[in-house]
Amino acid sequence: MSEPPSCVPGFSCGLDATLKVIAGKWKPLIIYFLLDTPNRYGELKRAVRGVSHKVLIQQLKELESDGIVVRTDYKEIPPRVDYALTALGRSLAEAMVPLSNWGAEHMEEVARVFAERDEWRRR
Amino acid sequence: MSEPPSCVPGFSCGLDATLKVIAGKWKPLIIYFLLDTPNRYGELKRAVRGVSHKVLIQQLKELESDGIVVRTDYKEIPPRVDYALTALGRSLAEAMVPLSNWGAEHMEEVARVFAERDEWRRR
Repeated sequence: MSEPPSCVPGFSCGLDATLKVIAGKWKPLIIYFLLDTPNRYGELKRAVRGVSHKVLIQQLKELESDGIVVRTDYKEIPPRVDYALTALGRSLAEAMVPLSNWGAEHMEEVARVFAERDEWRRR
Repeated sequence: MSEPPSCVPGFSCGLDATLKVIAGKWKPLIIYFLLDTPNRYGELKRAVRGVSHKVLIQQLKELESDGIVVRTDYKEIPPRVDYALTALGRSLAEAMVPLSNWGAEHMEEVARVFAERDEWRRR
């Protein structure tokens, strides 16, 4: 491990800096979804199911101003707007691959735990 | 990459399953902080700066019921309670290492971006 896990908020540890950037319910999914290819707004909206137009636009704007995402407006009619990762964003998305793999590997366990939790809440 | 980034919420992709487990402002820091060694409650509280007692206890309880963290009460006086990762929690914490490294590597960039954002907000 290249860094001791002594995390205290305020950029005193690496993880905290990362969390600052990806904080926002949909940001990790947006960033990860852009890993393969630039995406048009409509594709993103469909992929990140459950997000509202307002919130998706807001989170994309923040990711753009944070240097993670770049927006290209082709000035066409009908409008065509792409979102892609910057080099910084790409390195961040790549650092998320193990997290995604972890979820894929433990999906059944996670689903079971959350089903139990919901069951418990319904009592 | 072992998984195509086509993330849609509801456990349809690995990243989404992971996010379900680590959702909660302090959970990633708690999990990562426990990577090296079990920790007493007081050490956790000091490490995860800014968290309230109520919220820390709540997030630890959720992590415990999700099978990520195990709590040991030594039934001593004064009370001694340890929190440690389960095997599942350990694998999750290990999957966070690249995220932490990313933050450590790009800390200056991130700090600059957020300073600019705060500057912009003060105008």
